[in-house]
Amino acid sequence: MHMELEHLLPQEIEKRSFEIITKELAGKQLNPEHELIIKRCIHTTADFDYADNLCFSKQAVPKALKALRQGADIVTDTQMAKAGINKRTLAKFGGTVHCFIADEDVALEAKERGMTRSAASMEKAGKLNKKVIFAIGNAPTALIKLHEMIQEGKVNPELIIGVPVGFVNVVQSKELILKTEVPYIVARGRKGGSNVAAAICNALLYQLV
Amino acid sequence: MHMELEHLLPQEIEKRSFEIITKELAGKQLNPEHELIIKRCIHTTADFDYADNLCFSKQAVPKALKALRQGADIVTDTQMAKAGINKRTLAKFGGTVHCFIADEDVALEAKERGMTRSAASMEKAGKLNKKVIFAIGNAPTALIKLHEMIQEGKVNPELIIGVPVGFVNVVQSKELILKTEVPYIVARGRKGGSNVAAAICNALLYQLV
Repeated sequence: MHMELEHLLPQEIEKRSFEIITKELAGKQLNPEHELIIKRCIHTTADFDYADNLCFSKQAVPKALKALRQGADIVTDTQMAKAGINKRTLAKFGGTVHCFIADEDVALEAKERGMTRSAASMEKAGKLNKKVIFAIGNAPTALIKLHEMIQEGKVNPELIIGVPVGFVNVVQSKELILKTEVPYIVARGRKGGSNVAAAICNALLYQLV
Repeated sequence: MHMELEHLLPQEIEKRSFEIITKELAGKQLNPEHELIIKRCIHTTADFDYADNLCFSKQAVPKALKALRQGADIVTDTQMAKAGINKRTLAKFGGTVHCFIADEDVALEAKERGMTRSAASMEKAGKLNKKVIFAIGNAPTALIKLHEMIQEGKVNPELIIGVPVGFVNVVQSKELILKTEVPYIVARGRKGGSNVAAAICNALLYQLV
């Protein structure tokens, strides 16, 4: 194993990382529209499964870029995902990141109705009177609630980033989104995470500037 | 593939997840001292590689628990890791989470000296006059700087959680920490992340309550 430190300037590190990822993906045909997103997910996780598990609805990326340029907000299910998104770039176009999970009214609503705070936070987000991209990196219950709200015509997302992680209802919640007509980017299977949700948002944002 | 949704109460979801993880790890001998940490990393990533890649120095866990009980602070290299740590539980014992990456003085120092902000943020953390656990989930340059500061006697961490992720100097930076006498929990190889760093902190914190 190569154990010498590589000496790079701070600004060269990310470029070098993407070169390594590109090299290791050699031979893999990536849709150019999806390529930057796939590579950033690998960059964030060092997990090449994302070259295979990411599913994109038709035109998901250009539709999302258009929405972001028009000032769409992003709603996340965790503070971690919110923390990881480049809010400065989003703000240039008029967008804000929201995460309602820690709000008192959300906690109360969740407790009263025996639902997760993640699901209750989606209902609160449904009341935003703006174009919204949902970035779900943790809670399948958030994704299931979103699906329900879409079926009921209560929300019409510009994009759903559906990358919750885990073992209970995660696979199923993603399959629900794959069956909708809403633009989506979904990591099929168990994998995902708040870091992956943020990485996908950033991979979109970095294409705007 | 089983595609029906499982109907669980919110408070049952995590328990059920850990049951699935335990079942799928069947036959794998885990050190009881490390078990909760390994399982929480898998819970956070749905990646069973963490059953193999996590390395613990001798007595790392009891030493870390003792430090946390005594009010140790946690320093992270990213806002995401900070966002993911259960700060309420930490505060019960007198600890706080710090992340200096976005501080103006850190940005200035980094620019002047041609180093990463991550590395500069470790120097700032070295001035904390408290017991400190370092949780590094993103930047190998932070880990390399910590190693340098340890060699120079400038810092004496209660624990280093060394789980940066990626492709440039990540493997090497972790190997540096594995050679120190400082208590460590390190994810050998390329994998890790801010989510993994936070998960390890939380797996420790949940053992205190």
